[in-house]
Amino acid sequence: MFVDMPLDQLRAYLPERPEPADFDAFWDRTLTEARKHDLGAVFTPHPSALTVADVYDVTYAGYGGHAIKGWLLVPRGAEGPVPCVVEYIGYGGGRGLPIDWLLWPSFGWAVFVMDSRGQGAGGWRRGDTADPEPGTGPQTPGVMTKGVHDPDDYYYRRLYTDAVRAVEAARTHPAVDPGRIAVSGGSQGGAIALAVSALVPDLACALISVPFMCHIRHATQITDENPYAELAVYCRVFKDRVEEVFTTLSYFDGLNFAARSAVPALFSVGLRDGVTPPSTVFAAHNHYAGPKEMRVYPYNGHEGGESAHAMEQAAFLRAALGA
Amino acid sequence: MFVDMPLDQLRAYLPERPEPADFDAFWDRTLTEARKHDLGAVFTPHPSALTVADVYDVTYAGYGGHAIKGWLLVPRGAEGPVPCVVEYIGYGGGRGLPIDWLLWPSFGWAVFVMDSRGQGAGGWRRGDTADPEPGTGPQTPGVMTKGVHDPDDYYYRRLYTDAVRAVEAARTHPAVDPGRIAVSGGSQGGAIALAVSALVPDLACALISVPFMCHIRHATQITDENPYAELAVYCRVFKDRVEEVFTTLSYFDGLNFAARSAVPALFSVGLRDGVTPPSTVFAAHNHYAGPKEMRVYPYNGHEGGESAHAMEQAAFLRAALGA
Amino acid sequence: MFVDMPLDQLRAYLPERPEPADFDAFWDRTLTEARKHDLGAVFTPHPSALTVADVYDVTYAGYGGHAIKGWLLVPRGAEGPVPCVVEYIGYGGGRGLPIDWLLWPSFGWAVFVMDSRGQGAGGWRRGDTADPEPGTGPQTPGVMTKGVHDPDDYYYRRLYTDAVRAVEAARTHPAVDPGRIAVSGGSQGGAIALAVSALVPDLACALISVPFMCHIRHATQITDENPYAELAVYCRVFKDRVEEVFTTLSYFDGLNFAARSAVPALFSVGLRDGVTPPSTVFAAHNHYAGPKEMRVYPYNGHEGGESAHAMEQAAFLRAALGA
Amino acid sequence: MFVDMPLDQLRAYLPERPEPADFDAFWDRTLTEARKHDLGAVFTPHPSALTVADVYDVTYAGYGGHAIKGWLLVPRGAEGPVPCVVEYIGYGGGRGLPIDWLLWPSFGWAVFVMDSRGQGAGGWRRGDTADPEPGTGPQTPGVMTKGVHDPDDYYYRRLYTDAVRAVEAARTHPAVDPGRIAVSGGSQGGAIALAVSALVPDLACALISVPFMCHIRHATQITDENPYAELAVYCRVFKDRVEEVFTTLSYFDGLNFAARSAVPALFSVGLRDGVTPPSTVFAAHNHYAGPKEMRVYPYNGHEGGESAHAMEQAAFLRAALGA
Amino acid sequence: MFVDMPLDQLRAYLPERPEPADFDAFWDRTLTEARKHDLGAVFTPHPSALTVADVYDVTYAGYGGHAIKGWLLVPRGAEGPVPCVVEYIGYGGGRGLPIDWLLWPSFGWAVFVMDSRGQGAGGWRRGDTADPEPGTGPQTPGVMTKGVHDPDDYYYRRLYTDAVRAVEAARTHPAVDPGRIAVSGGSQGGAIALAVSALVPDLACALISVPFMCHIRHATQITDENPYAELAVYCRVFKDRVEEVFTTLSYFDGLNFAARSAVPALFSVGLRDGVTPPSTVFAAHNHYAGPKEMRVYPYNGHEGGESAHAMEQAAFLRAALGA
Amino acid sequence: MFVDMPLDQLRAYLPERPEPADFDAFWDRTLTEARKHDLGAVFTPHPSALTVADVYDVTYAGYGGHAIKGWLLVPRGAEGPVPCVVEYIGYGGGRGLPIDWLLWPSFGWAVFVMDSRGQGAGGWRRGDTADPEPGTGPQTPGVMTKGVHDPDDYYYRRLYTDAVRAVEAARTHPAVDPGRIAVSGGSQGGAIALAVSALVPDLACALISVPFMCHIRHATQITDENPYAELAVYCRVFKDRVEEVFTTLSYFDGLNFAARSAVPALFSVGLRDGVTPPSTVFAAHNHYAGPKEMRVYPYNGHEGGESAHAMEQAAFLRAALGA
Repeated sequence: MFVDMPLDQLRAYLPERPEPADFDAFWDRTLTEARKHDLGAVFTPHPSALTVADVYDVTYAGYGGHAIKGWLLVPRGAEGPVPCVVEYIGYGGGRGLPIDWLLWPSFGWAVFVMDSRGQGAGGWRRGDTADPEPGTGPQTPGVMTKGVHDPDDYYYRRLYTDAVRAVEAARTHPAVDPGRIAVSGGSQGGAIALAVSALVPDLACALISVPFMCHIRHATQITDENPYAELAVYCRVFKDRVEEVFTTLSYFDGLNFAARSAVPALFSVGLRDGVTPPSTVFAAHNHYAGPKEMRVYPYNGHEGGESAHAMEQAAFLRAALGA
Repeated sequence: MFVDMPLDQLRAYLPERPEPADFDAFWDRTLTEARKHDLGAVFTPHPSALTVADVYDVTYAGYGGHAIKGWLLVPRGAEGPVPCVVEYIGYGGGRGLPIDWLLWPSFGWAVFVMDSRGQGAGGWRRGDTADPEPGTGPQTPGVMTKGVHDPDDYYYRRLYTDAVRAVEAARTHPAVDPGRIAVSGGSQGGAIALAVSALVPDLACALISVPFMCHIRHATQITDENPYAELAVYCRVFKDRVEEVFTTLSYFDGLNFAARSAVPALFSVGLRDGVTPPSTVFAAHNHYAGPKEMRVYPYNGHEGGESAHAMEQAAFLRAALGA
Repeated sequence: MFVDMPLDQLRAYLPERPEPADFDAFWDRTLTEARKHDLGAVFTPHPSALTVADVYDVTYAGYGGHAIKGWLLVPRGAEGPVPCVVEYIGYGGGRGLPIDWLLWPSFGWAVFVMDSRGQGAGGWRRGDTADPEPGTGPQTPGVMTKGVHDPDDYYYRRLYTDAVRAVEAARTHPAVDPGRIAVSGGSQGGAIALAVSALVPDLACALISVPFMCHIRHATQITDENPYAELAVYCRVFKDRVEEVFTTLSYFDGLNFAARSAVPALFSVGLRDGVTPPSTVFAAHNHYAGPKEMRVYPYNGHEGGESAHAMEQAAFLRAALGA
Repeated sequence: MFVDMPLDQLRAYLPERPEPADFDAFWDRTLTEARKHDLGAVFTPHPSALTVADVYDVTYAGYGGHAIKGWLLVPRGAEGPVPCVVEYIGYGGGRGLPIDWLLWPSFGWAVFVMDSRGQGAGGWRRGDTADPEPGTGPQTPGVMTKGVHDPDDYYYRRLYTDAVRAVEAARTHPAVDPGRIAVSGGSQGGAIALAVSALVPDLACALISVPFMCHIRHATQITDENPYAELAVYCRVFKDRVEEVFTTLSYFDGLNFAARSAVPALFSVGLRDGVTPPSTVFAAHNHYAGPKEMRVYPYNGHEGGESAHAMEQAAFLRAALGA
Repeated sequence: MFVDMPLDQLRAYLPERPEPADFDAFWDRTLTEARKHDLGAVFTPHPSALTVADVYDVTYAGYGGHAIKGWLLVPRGAEGPVPCVVEYIGYGGGRGLPIDWLLWPSFGWAVFVMDSRGQGAGGWRRGDTADPEPGTGPQTPGVMTKGVHDPDDYYYRRLYTDAVRAVEAARTHPAVDPGRIAVSGGSQGGAIALAVSALVPDLACALISVPFMCHIRHATQITDENPYAELAVYCRVFKDRVEEVFTTLSYFDGLNFAARSAVPALFSVGLRDGVTPPSTVFAAHNHYAGPKEMRVYPYNGHEGGESAHAMEQAAFLRAALGA
Repeated sequence: MFVDMPLDQLRAYLPERPEPADFDAFWDRTLTEARKHDLGAVFTPHPSALTVADVYDVTYAGYGGHAIKGWLLVPRGAEGPVPCVVEYIGYGGGRGLPIDWLLWPSFGWAVFVMDSRGQGAGGWRRGDTADPEPGTGPQTPGVMTKGVHDPDDYYYRRLYTDAVRAVEAARTHPAVDPGRIAVSGGSQGGAIALAVSALVPDLACALISVPFMCHIRHATQITDENPYAELAVYCRVFKDRVEEVFTTLSYFDGLNFAARSAVPALFSVGLRDGVTPPSTVFAAHNHYAGPKEMRVYPYNGHEGGESAHAMEQAAFLRAALGA
């Protein structure tokens, strides 16, 4: 049985946001510190046998100056710089292989895929980037609770910072038009795209699919599916630190980024989604301050709208990228 | 716990084949009849917004002259006809959308995707082709038992015939080099590719991944996973027709096609595969009469070797297609 | 945890019905066409070794004049024509064996069991009737989506028509009193009995147990169990055809038949039923226009009231059949 | 994956039997004691509205003289005494309602259904008989471990004794031909029928379907399904009493009854049965000393051969009962 | 998805209590009868090799004068009588081994563990006490339905009486201070502690963790987990006796004991508890008439607050026991 | 169905060990380096309200000089130093609370519990120790693959080293008799105890219960349960690094430690254990070079012998510790 709110309630759902007073200061400080490291984006040609795109194995300095990997695929034969979609990855996955990223180049745009530090061994697309920061305490399997007792130490501080820097890195490649950058991702990738849409104001658009890390405390109260369940497991063990955990998470909750975003965004939601339940996705969408559209998939779960939604995204990108 | 044979036994496993005396006659007659219908392959340009390939919405006459749908993607900017990979689809899926088939065009080859008649509403890639033959009796959900009481009426007679005709249709397009055709598929798609490798001798190569429909009776005795389980359900209900069912299936068992194939083939198997158990895949590989290679994925299930295997396939294709 | 409405809300639940303007015209036309075919009911004595009833293997012309199978069991030793219960079968089952239908003859009534075309290989009671109409497109396993894009092509148009003709066939047998016919069924059988109760006005009564095909769109939104889930899977794949699907289904929704029925009916519902959730069953009951009783089984699921309910049905039949 | 032995090994499987030296003495003593109580079979006409059979609500003295309930259905209109099938019930069920037992009367034979003391509240057919003996210690839910530390106290001593007395009770009814009694049952019912076939030599035949309580220790080592799993749970808790438990069970193991039986028997087995795994059923069949036939259902589980097997049983009964 | 009420509604939830008119008379009569039997508490020194406590194997007369087992652990080296915690056990468990009860002696208090008659073979801690009363009818596996048709025969009448007598037995040991007795238990143990808190007025305090047997009918309507599900299974079978069952249970519902309790109590609840759902636990707490505290564990299920809650209990005990 | 080897084969099972040539050198070097850091064991009295033991919150320098937490409980009132059991914890758990460790002090022995670095947030006992080494690449959730590409970086190098240092730390406390130290643990704790039994020769004994990390490659081939499954997931993703992974693991495989151990050991195994399958446990036991005993629990899974085995351990300890 499906038990989240019915669609009409979802469309109107606007819960209170858990916003810390120094939210903006925190992120200003975080990005300022990160930018002290030389971005140092290196694009090494990668032999792929592909005929439609040039592939580059990318390394650049993310949070803490750490080496972050990525792939850049540039469509062959373009005249002048092309728009670029910066793609973020779902929970547990990594950058995979270049052939996993043929979609946007097939439309004539570059794609820059950011590897997720420390992820990419969860069973699907492989990763190639370590997270050189150790945990600061016991950790529930997965990265949700890595450093969760202090916003400064929390894993997602590093990951979101890497993501901002990924946009900056993409902009340095001569084949990329720095004025036409989109960000995109589903689930954790959607959470990242949402955060970046607030932290990097001059984006062309954001594709935010079934985003994770939104309305987090509510999510932990209604779903028993991972990765939100990692937080629940942690709070079960550390009964005395629950408030501390959610204080940290308030610096990373998509609702707060949504309220600060101004770039045009295309959201999607599956009404049968138990991983990122519809009420958490609508909460983000409804708080989103920029121009926005929502695609509702009533008979889908966390997979969202699949290839049909990719076609929606392509049309949205075409309009936003002027291409 | 995993319980199929250990790898060294799998490599040596060569079970008896259930071959009917008129196997070759049956297929000669079947294909001869099908070819009486005008192939009538029509390639209608399909607006896709893709910049790397021209997309054609294909219709051609399959078994019984029925209209079979497909997609043809031809890489743009090729000089002269290009090799073409004819791709067959796994159980329950359909041809989906053109953006689902960007892989081989990205290497410079055309791809011709055959829709599976009556399939494509199973939850993943959509189909657009009806199976205009009705069932000939009660049917276990799915197509495994459609017409299973008579080889002439059996669903897979039509599907395999469509597949042979798909190769013929691909060859009629001016952008395709008819001398350099490969067939490819996983699971049901692998079963089809295996059958076509025997029925169409002049192929460049066959990519047969975790093939279904091999060593069928054995499969129904050891696994309880679909789609083999559809046969078990049927036999549970029709206790008096079990031999009849397996007589029909002997005309479609991959072991018999394997013993007749001469084209170079690349197989793959996942040792944790409960859908097409390793012993059924090795039985097909070990009986395969043509040049063959096997890639073993010890920690994979029915998903097989994923993108890593796609790269293996690309290398194999490059060698076989001379491209 | 059980999550459908509590009992007091269920008793008052009267949702809007999705009624197409030409509902009555559609069914008039459908039945008129069907009746152009000669009913041709043939009752072949079937050797069963039973001593209490004569068994007939029945064939008659259903929708399209197609040959529909059935069993007729007539209690031995009756003086004059007896009342007859026309029984419809649940999803996936078929007419089974004559010994599966001893209940009503043991009370002195004939039973006429209609086979469900194309069903009867789903793992339980076998069927013996083909559905000679092919699908008109890709089909989710099962029959729920066979021809779902056009009311004229939809599987249940044929099945419901077969069911009306089954009553007519039963009435032709000399041992059956045509003025004392009841219809009965559970789940899909209940859906059929409900439809027939509206389409055949002169029935003695209808036994409608845990009926399927009621308040269909709502059902697909709240349950993830088959067979309603087949519709959800289909709508997931064909995202652009959801309205079309539910338009077709509005010609078959039990709520619309309920509003047209005048025969005395005995309903049943299990409050723990996840297959035909209580709110869908009460919606049908509450809209039912004829005399009606409801038996509520608070601790049962889709199995409903089991043999205890069969005894309730026997008492209800005795009163209605004057026997 | 299915992992019990393949069929050819099953057919030859003849494991050692765990036979206590005083097995025969134990059962002689047990039955002698039981027979000291007046059988006192009372047959009270039960209003059922059935027209094909007279129904009697039966009470007789079982083990310890305890009142055991049953149903007797006698076909109406028979000339002279009729054969009678004494039916035993599967685990957790009770005698249910008279309408649950129409099968054998429909063939012209009486049926005598023995209620299982203390069972009949397990979710399916209700029971009406208490087990007036308390447990002799802690008990795993279910009856498998009730009194398991002493053969004299063990639940199945009482149940098997009730079953022998049920045959004696059936023979006292004037409508029953005492010389033509069959015993029948599936699962626990099969275990009882097997035991009675050894303890009551002058039976016409025994129908022993997917019997439970055979090769018990082996069963507890290979299956994790109930009811054998109840023994495993008990042995997990009482680690120091495992040998004691299996010593008690050796007085009740079907293998020992099989070796003593002389009545013609029809066995059945489902090769996918995880409740009474095939090797335990074949062990009983292969040790069976009387004339025997086995029906193998390769694609069935514990449900065995269903109505198709009931027809096999009817034919076997007709031959054995001379009716 | 978690679907019981949100916390603020839980805190205010005060459902009607199902109180029979003779509730107090029933328990007065019950205890008066029990006390006619000599308590006869025997404390046999048990060799345990423990150095911190003396262990006694206890036997005393419970309900009906039946021999009930227990353990008494008395901390070594105490000067004068010590407070004692009487501990009751969760469903299916027994008194286990002395080393299972080291917690309270490690704080300097004695612990008296009452074995649960007939339980202790459910897979975890073993029991050593039989329930010498037989069932009075068919019984769903487990003890929930043993004698459920008459309050006088119901299993929990005996168990609760044993529990009252356990307090009395503990008070007879010279090392125990009879004026400082606490009762404690989780789940079924919590149900018992709650009942005893009402039946034995002069207790120092009660520790009532995730109590079972509270708001019973509601529980059977919302959860499908055992042991409440045993009642649902029973009511499914005995459809005509549902009211009878709940009448019996009204004599044992924790809500009625709560309304009569005056001893200081510490409750606990897990908001993800599907076994004793939060609304049933809060119903008991909110009706509790004595001084009370509640510890809420938002991310725990039926395991409740684990060792962290044990520390809460220790602090609560220290205050209540003046130790 | 249970499918590992039968008991007689298990007792004789002696598979080849995967031993790297520099196994001893690796561990010599590792421990030598660790010992360059000052052990610095600090024992801070911890207010626990316990009356039977003094509790110390322990910190000492483990691998890399990292601060490792632990608890020391010393029985009160002992005359002179007492023996001490050093306890290691199962996968995902941490040192929990002092009240979790009352068992050995209750027998008069001290217990020293080592926290597992980075673990203790997996849902059960909490941990308080960070692992200050970051991962060296993508990591499957859990610690099994942290640094798995190089023996020097592998998580278990640090954990095993911490464990050796824990023995050394325990020996520094004045209340502990350094000549009478036992090591103990189950599952991961058993793996650690086994390793320490080889690396610290002068132990009184080792209690190795259902040990993990034994015959590792075989384990990953037969079980799909965590934590071995973490390795399988990793190898599925990193198909090209499988040999590298198992080379690293050969430095940590319990079989190699077993072959080097000389201290008396008590093993235990559950024959239904799917987490550490019996064949992996027997492989370790059969290779164990020191005096050894094995307790087999035929009806237990990974929980092993529970409190009954704790009593076996207590007796074994008494003999070994001369206490």
